[in-house]
This record gives sequence, structure tokens and C-alpha cells, in this order.
Amino acid sequence: HTPRSTAAAHTGASSLSLRSHTCGELRPHHVGGSVTLCGWVQYLRQDLFVILRDFSGLAQVLIPQEESASHLKAMLCDLTTESVVKVTGTVRRRPAGQENKGMPTGEIEVLAESVEVLNVCCTLPFEIKDFVKKSEALRMKYRYLDLRSSQMQRNLRLRSQLVMRMREFLCKEHGFVDVETPTLFKRTPGGAKEFVVPSREPGRFYSLPQSPQQFKQLLMVAGVDRYFQVARCYRDEGSRPDRQPEFTQVDIEMSFVEQAGILSLVEGLLAHSWPAEKGPVQVPFQTMTYEEAMRDYGVDKPDTRFCMKLMDLSPVFSSTQIEFLRSALSQPAGSVQAICVPSGVKLFSAKDLEELKQTAKTQFRQELSVVLVRADGTLKSPLKKLLSASATEEMLQGTGAQPGDLLLLAAGALHAVRPLLGKLRLQCAELLESRGMSVRDPSAFHFLWVVDFPLFLPKEEDPEQLESAHHPFTAPRPEDTHLLYTEPHKVRGQHYDLVLNGCEIGGGSIRIHKASEQLHVLKSVLKEDPSLLSHLLEALDSGAPPHGGIALGLDRLVSIMVGAHSIRDVIAFPKSFRGHDLMSCAPDLVSDEELQSYHISVNWPAEQEGGEEGK
Amino acid sequence: HTPRSTAAAHTGASSLSLRSHTCGELRPHHVGGSVTLCGWVQYLRQDLFVILRDFSGLAQVLIPQEESASHLKAMLCDLTTESVVKVTGTVRRRPAGQENKGMPTGEIEVLAESVEVLNVCCTLPFEIKDFVKKSEALRMKYRYLDLRSSQMQRNLRLRSQLVMRMREFLCKEHGFVDVETPTLFKRTPGGAKEFVVPSREPGRFYSLPQSPQQFKQLLMVAGVDRYFQVARCYRDEGSRPDRQPEFTQVDIEMSFVEQAGILSLVEGLLAHSWPAEKGPVQVPFQTMTYEEAMRDYGVDKPDTRFCMKLMDLSPVFSSTQIEFLRSALSQPAGSVQAICVPSGVKLFSAKDLEELKQTAKTQFRQELSVVLVRADGTLKSPLKKLLSASATEEMLQGTGAQPGDLLLLAAGALHAVRPLLGKLRLQCAELLESRGMSVRDPSAFHFLWVVDFPLFLPKEEDPEQLESAHHPFTAPRPEDTHLLYTEPHKVRGQHYDLVLNGCEIGGGSIRIHKASEQLHVLKSVLKEDPSLLSHLLEALDSGAPPHGGIALGLDRLVSIMVGAHSIRDVIAFPKSFRGHDLMSCAPDLVSDEELQSYHISVNWPAEQEGGEEGK
Repeated sequence: HTPRSTAAAHTGASSLSLRSHTCGELRPHHVGGSVTLCGWVQYLRQDLFVILRDFSGLAQVLIPQEESASHLKAMLCDLTTESVVKVTGTVRRRPAGQENKGMPTGEIEVLAESVEVLNVCCTLPFEIKDFVKKSEALRMKYRYLDLRSSQMQRNLRLRSQLVMRMREFLCKEHGFVDVETPTLFKRTPGGAKEFVVPSREPGRFYSLPQSPQQFKQLLMVAGVDRYFQVARCYRDEGSRPDRQPEFTQVDIEMSFVEQAGILSLVEGLLAHSWPAEKGPVQVPFQTMTYEEAMRDYGVDKPDTRFCMKLMDLSPVFSSTQIEFLRSALSQPAGSVQAICVPSGVKLFSAKDLEELKQTAKTQFRQELSVVLVRADGTLKSPLKKLLSASATEEMLQGTGAQPGDLLLLAAGALHAVRPLLGKLRLQCAELLESRGMSVRDPSAFHFLWVVDFPLFLPKEEDPEQLESAHHPFTAPRPEDTHLLYTEPHKVRGQHYDLVLNGCEIGGGSIRIHKASEQLHVLKSVLKEDPSLLSHLLEALDSGAPPHGGIALGLDRLVSIMVGAHSIRDVIAFPKSFRGHDLMSCAPDLVSDEELQSYHISVNWPAEQEGGEEGK
Repeated sequence: HTPRSTAAAHTGASSLSLRSHTCGELRPHHVGGSVTLCGWVQYLRQDLFVILRDFSGLAQVLIPQEESASHLKAMLCDLTTESVVKVTGTVRRRPAGQENKGMPTGEIEVLAESVEVLNVCCTLPFEIKDFVKKSEALRMKYRYLDLRSSQMQRNLRLRSQLVMRMREFLCKEHGFVDVETPTLFKRTPGGAKEFVVPSREPGRFYSLPQSPQQFKQLLMVAGVDRYFQVARCYRDEGSRPDRQPEFTQVDIEMSFVEQAGILSLVEGLLAHSWPAEKGPVQVPFQTMTYEEAMRDYGVDKPDTRFCMKLMDLSPVFSSTQIEFLRSALSQPAGSVQAICVPSGVKLFSAKDLEELKQTAKTQFRQELSVVLVRADGTLKSPLKKLLSASATEEMLQGTGAQPGDLLLLAAGALHAVRPLLGKLRLQCAELLESRGMSVRDPSAFHFLWVVDFPLFLPKEEDPEQLESAHHPFTAPRPEDTHLLYTEPHKVRGQHYDLVLNGCEIGGGSIRIHKASEQLHVLKSVLKEDPSLLSHLLEALDSGAPPHGGIALGLDRLVSIMVGAHSIRDVIAFPKSFRGHDLMSCAPDLVSDEELQSYHISVNWPAEQEGGEEGK
């Protein structure tokens, strides 16, 4: 057999390998040494140099020009780009004046002494250069080429390192146990977004769970004390932009803990695992109640990197004669709210203003009033002639609007007006940035806890009925528990969301740990059939400890961390927005015969659907 | 909001918790300190003590007996077992003579000063005591109770720690990148054991892959260089004992590596991550060719903890007149083989011998000849009167059989005789052990590499056709590559299996990295349709580096490590042997309406099948 050294004789990125060094690690202190590199031909230059690439970077290989090395020269000059070679040679300092300051290995080059062509590359559908813009469909179809870009290499490696540090923090510093939970599970009552998996028993299906929620709670009942898992989760939402049918969450659950303990744990987790090059994470994170978030930002996941908060102008218009404002204020929870866009007068065009109004109309069915504060302090607005001098004065004072600023006003019920202005606030920030104004620092990471959510919300289709704001296992705030039995719509839950730069990247709660309370919530408040969760109710009755936890959306977290546009840029093999794997063409047809053992058959629609995407 | 300390102010198993200490950590040096414990009531003793349990162990809580503490006493004495309480009190040394040497916390007790009942436990279906033997079905139905046993707690924690150390070794010492690959994939050609997952497009299905094989190779083509993943894999085999429909493998792939590099890596991995209390792992592991394994042990995964090897007696009988032996030897690859069972004459009953013969007959359709070597050296066997004195002498010498030993002889084609004796060898070892003889050290871990497997095997149903011995991506041994085009059945592959105590716990190979070679194997040797793997072939043509890897079966590895009888004992929520989750009753019925969005319907069989298991 091949003789081999004992294990762990070498460590590092080139251990146990055909190469002695990686391309990107060579520096002047290697000069004079003999090295063996393995990599891809990035390009050839003037029959003099081969630029060799591996995951770590580029190295310049000098092609010997002497007659005695003509065979070597011919071999190297024949190479197609992206072919794979092994080069052995001597590291030399580049001649004076030929250094490349922009290249980490730019002070050295490797004089080739022997070469082995490990594989020849045929013509590719696109070049592997970072500046080559490819269509998304082409990138997905040839994902194994797309992943060769330095950006994708960096993203995957940063993700791996982040998760490793998270594991170390949880396992080694806080005694968590990494437990794998099943993904072939039972369908959740009402789990419309769960994929089903036919079994070999007629009519019986597993389902792929959206999270390990039930299992993590059962592990607490089981006395595991502290559980975590980097868990694969599934959600069948059909086609949705920047969602994936399978995704990953960092799933955490602890016993004998209160809300504050979980928040501190997660702060420590992120501070510990955040890459040094992305700057330190400040802890503790800012905390805001749901009510404060809605009041100030019009949304439950505010982007706190910039201000432009919602302002309540209701007092200004309390005795207004302006009909639509008076009518708005007279309805239940009626309000007049505004945001002030700095420099909006100069930076926004009439078309921009029209687009903001269109957003209000089409997405929110509301009217938007626009007030421009001219450089000289006078107003330009349809409202102008309807406003008294004192109201104008109060409005400008109340909003702090300066000459050149733009005011956007909306009037109506709070639950309608706030989301509208919350949305316009973000839209204005984007517009300002597209006009060159610095609104949000792209290198800043603003973490924020949102807490004190309502435990139940009125059902959209039947506002008399309540549904869980998050899920039915969330415990009420202790001081609100009595309201469960009298005024459940007033109960606030021990739920917390973690928001980063305006994106929800995690959520969790302290759970109900008493069976009687859980039964009351399921049966009396939510009017659900508790028998579907009988195993969980039984478990709570068998000595369940107080417990709570959180799940962090890893794909989204990493995408914000690396500044990617889409979570597809931090997933090795993502699906397209239609849920297709464009490389292997999944999902695919399966023969009737193959389906037979699962006792299912396909209901073909009368008319066939359209063609495939990306073709 | 709840005031809270900044993160990471505390670390350890009781950080951020309602408790100050775990039950199991208290020692004499804690005496005098005030502690808060949270845990389960293991039992009450004489209204004097509550034995409190958490994951870390047991602590004795002393119930105060003074009148002033009567409320506390009443509360504690009322507790049902497995109720959950928080106890604050002072650690005291137990009175002299009352120490419990068998209990790690046996020198101390905690005098209760305040108690909070966190949850009351109702009557349980069984007691949570390690000595209580429960039926498998009951254990599975109430898994959250079963997991409270110290054995299951230990198993899950050891598993978590093992995986953590593996990750550290791979990521931090050898530059591996943890990459998650999709589990919603395309059906593999001929993947009869793959679960299908209907999509919302009529007739189109994802499948749950049996391993990330294709993805890991594509990651190498993508230049990721070193990949690993603790990967969830799926295999639908219907009902099979000690198999799970979902299982976990430690999946590894490296570029620019040869077979020896992978073997060294895995040896280092296991030596690094093996728990200290299980003793050190000796590296390098023993290596054996497939041919040697079959020759000496009759199986490709030999249990090398004991000898009892197969011996070739063909020369002894080369000119025999015994008809069945002569006939066996005259056929192609005909042979007479034997194993010698030490002390078999004394330890095996006539019934045992009959069972061995039955195994031969029913499982292998072969006759077994039994020769007992009596204490006085004479033979007892149907063969005795047919054997010449010299043949007898040669046989005893050739096998080294001593008085009291038992010889088992089988004659026929090698490919039939070897597996029979390989099986009987294991059966005899078990029999000997059941009679009190020490054959295999239960605390020993014998790792073994088996290498040089044939690359192809004749198909069972059509021996003229070849199929892959493992999978079609395995590279031939370099010196055999030319035979691919002339005599493919003679090609040995660069495949390696890792065997531990006679169980296959891993397997891998150096892969084919040239498209032309892969195409030849698929098309010309295996007669498969290469278009089904066109994306892989295209990838190999786009600059694929030489690469190889391995997958370790984590469930099996951990079960051997902890000495569990079944992999179910190292999985938190396993399925039953019929693939059922007995706790939640998965798989379950799904309404026609819910299936509609997946365009499938159930083919109900004419007659309904029998009842459910475990009920």
C-alpha cells in the first residue's frame, strides 16, 4: 500500500496534500524556497507568466524561457484558462519595478521547474472573473463555476467560521448540547406551508417541519437543559423572491431561564462570533417595545441606522377644519402622522413624489399629503391654503422641519397610517441614498431587540377571533397572565424579535410550561383542537421546567454580515425564486412506477403550464 | 424592561440561569455557601430528604424539621416525583456516617431555606429510574421521559462533544469549510431508496438524497478545496431493524489529495475527537485489502478483535476420495475452508451445532461439516471414517486444532464458502461469549481500513453485466486504469472502508476527476444513460481538481463508542423499526384537500393493512 505518515503530522490548509503551499500565502520570506502549488489557470500573460489561482488567492508563475525548458514552456503556454495544474518551482523576488502592490503575493513569483497538468478545462459558458456580470440563471446553472469567484469563496468561508465560533460559544462557554432532531415529522395542525413526504403506508405522510419547535421544547422536558442545533428547516411558499424552500436556523433552547437570560446569551453569542474584520458588536443591544417600534418607525422591525421617525401631528389638527383630517381624527384610534425627509425638496423630483403617493395608494389604499418647505421657509402644498398660520407654525415646530425638508403626512386609523409611513420612511431613505446622500452607514450593524409583542392578534378574515401573533407556545408576560382568562387580546407575550439593520434575523420566546395554561390557550383562546398536540400537553404535565429559546435565521444573518444582495449569495446551492435547482433541474418528473410504492398518483391538470424559467 | 447584566458576564453550565449551581457539581468545598438548585424530584425519603436531579446528577436536599419551617416542609413533602422545583439553601457536610460514597455529591447535602414549585408532575407511565426496564414502544412513545435516564443523557452529551471536537479538528487544524448542501434535490437515476417530495408543479418531485455525494464533488470543482458537513441523509428502506429513514454522516471531501492523505486525515480526526474516558485511539489503523479480508475473515468488514480466521484446507483434500469435497474442489474457484473454534467441544451443545448447520443451510444453502477434536485427540465427525490417517493429521496440523477444539468445514466455490464461514465465525464468537468465554474485549476499539475493493461486481440478476461495487464515481487504482478499457472486472478501485469492531462505520474513495473517464465508466462499463448526470460530466470538464473523500456514519460510530445496543440509543428522537414516530404518530394521514396543492392523490389499496405497531 501507499506508505503514509502517521496522522496529524501536518496541520494547516496544505496538510496531507499534493501541494506544499497555497497560492495566496506566498510572501517575500518564502524567497529561495522550493514550493509546490496546485490551482487553476486564471490567465496566461505574454507566454511569460501563468497566473495560478486557488481559494486563497493568486500567484504568478514564471515560465522558463531557456531552450532546455522548451517542453515545460510548451506545456504551460498550451494551457486553457481554468485548467488545473500542479507546479513545482522556486520562489523568487520579482525584479525591481515589477511588483504588484495590489496583489498580496505581488512581491514574489515562482519560477516553474516542473509542471503536471491535472485536468484540462474545456470552453466555459462564462469567464471566472469577478468583474464579469452574469445573469442569475446562468450563475445558478453553472453554480460550480460561480462559486469560484473570490466573493462567493469569501462568503462561504465567513459563514463556516461564524457558525464554528457560535458552536464554540454555546458548547464550550455555556454548556449547550448539540442535538439533532428529526426532519421527517408529523404535519403540524394548519401547517399549510409544510412539504409532505409520502411513506410506504398508503395515505400516510411525513412532513418536513418549519422549525424544530416541538422537539426543542420536548428536549427541555427531557432534562437536556440547554439545546442548540444548526437546523435545516423547510417552508413551502411556492415562488417568493429571496426565500428558499430549505433554510437554516441556529436553534437554541434553555431551561430555568427568563427572557433577560436569553437576550444576554444571544448578545454574547453574536459578539463572540462576529468576524473581527466586520468590527466589534456593541452589547447589550438596544431594546424597544413593539408599541414603541410601531409608534416611532411604523414597523415591528425598525431600521435604526437612521432617524426620520414618525411624528404624531394629531394635536396640531385637533380643531382643524380640513375635512379629510377631521374625518380621520374622528374615527377610532384616528391620527395624523408625518415623517420629515431632510433635503427632500432639493433631492426629490416631482416624479419621486408621485411614486411615493402611488405606494400609498396601491399598497396601502391611502392618500398621502406632501408638504415642501422651501428654502425661504414658505410651504408648497395643496394643504397650504387650508392651513391657518398657527397650524402651519405648530406643524413646522412639531416636526422640526427645516427649509429644504419634505413632510409626508398621512391621516387615518393608527394601524393603517403607521405601516404606510414606516414603508415610506424606508423608500425615502433609498431615494436619498440613490441621490448621493448618506443616510445609512453600509458598514454599520444596528442590532435591536423588539419586545412586548401582543400575544394574540385579531384574525384578518374574522376580527372577532384571535390567532397567535407568533405561535401558541409563547408564554404571557407574568403581569398579564390573569388577562388570559378575561381579556386575552390585551395580553403581551414574552416574545422577542432580534432585528439587524431593519431585517428580522431572529425571534423567540419564553414558552408556556404548564399544561393547564397551554390547554387554555389552545382550546379557549384559539379555539383549536388540542388533541392534535396531545403529546406536547402530556409532556408539559410530566414535569416540564420553565424554558425559552430563540431561532436565528442564519442565511439572512450572514447575508447582512457580508453585505450580499440576496441570501442566495451565502448559500452554496440555492434554489431559484421558483424553487428550482437550475443545475440538476430539480424538481423533476418521476415515473408512475416509482410513485407506486408510495401509493400516490399525479393529478395532471387539464391544461399544461408554461415553460421553464431561465431557459 | 427586565434589567440585565451584559452578556458573557457568566459562563458555564449555570450561566444566565435561575440556578447558581447544578445538582451534580456540589462538593465539600461548597460547604457553607448558599446555592440555588433547579431540578426534578427523583424521590422523597422519610419526609426528611428530597433527592433532586438535573442533567449533571443528584443532590440531597434536607427538609427543615423545625416548626417555624412547617410551610416549607409541607410543600416539599407534598411533591410528586418528577415535579420541578427551585430550592435555595445552604450546603452542609453530611453528618459523620451518613456520607454516600457511591454518589458524587454524597459528602454534602443542602438545607432548604426556600422552595418554589416550578411545575407539578402528574402520574407517569413509568418511573424515571435507570433500573426500570421499559418496553421499546413505551420508551419511544414517551421519549421525553426516556431521555431523562442518565444513560441517554450521557449518550447525547458524548455525541455532541464528539462532533464538536471533529469540527475543531477539521476547521481549525486542517482548513476545512463547513458547507451546507441541499436536501431537496433531484432523484438519482435508479435511486429506489430515495424519498420523494411533491412540489407545487404537477408531476414534479424533489427527492431527499442518500448522501451529498454529487454536491461534495461539485464543491471541489468549485474550488472550495476542503469541505465537510455533518449531513442529514435519507434512505427509504421500509422496515429494517436498526436502520433509520434519516441518519447523519460526517461528510468530508478534499482536493489535491491521494488515498493516503484521506486515511491519515480520518485517523487524526478520530484520535483527536475520541473521548478521553474511552481510551486513546492508536494510529495509524491496521490496513487490509479486500482480498485479505475475504480470505482471512470471509467478510469485507472483519471484526479483528479476535482471531478464529478462515483456513484453506484445499491442499489437504487435493486428492481426496470424499465425494462432496472432490466435487467442490473440481468446480471453478473450488475450495475447502475451515474455522477452528477453541474449546468448542466443551462449550457447544449438540443443539448449538445444529443451529450452526441450520444457519449454513437456510442463509447460505450450504452443508457444514463439523469435526470435534476430543480431549484425547480423537475425532468425532461423520467425516472421520472417510478421512485417511494422513489427511486427519494434515488437517489438524493445518488448522492448529487442539484437543477440545471444534472444526467447522465448508466446501464449494470461494465466493460462497467464505461468507458462510465469516458468518459462522461471528456466530461462534457470540456463542462462546454467552457461555462465559472471553472472546472480544468489550472496551476495545479495533479500527481497520479495508482497501483495494474491486471497482465493479457482476450484477446478481445478470452476471454478464457489471455494476459499481460502491458508486460510479470511484476512481480506479492508477495501475489498473488501463484495464477499464479491456478487462473492467479486474479493476481495483481507490475505495476504502473504515471498519470498527466488525461494523462498517465509513467509506470513501478517490473520485474520477476526468470527464472522459467518467463517461466511459457510465456509458461503456455500466451501460447507463450518461445524460442523467450531464451536470456532473460538464463540471468535470470545467477544470475539476483531483479529489476524494469519505463519509462516516455518525449514529453507528457513536453507538459503538458508548456501547449502545442500537443506534436508537444515540438518537434523540428515533423512528421505530417500521419508520414510525411513536410519540407524535408520524407518518400520519393528510387530507385530500391538503394534497391538492401538490397535485397528487392517494391510491388506496383494495384491502386495508393491519393495525399499528406498539399499540
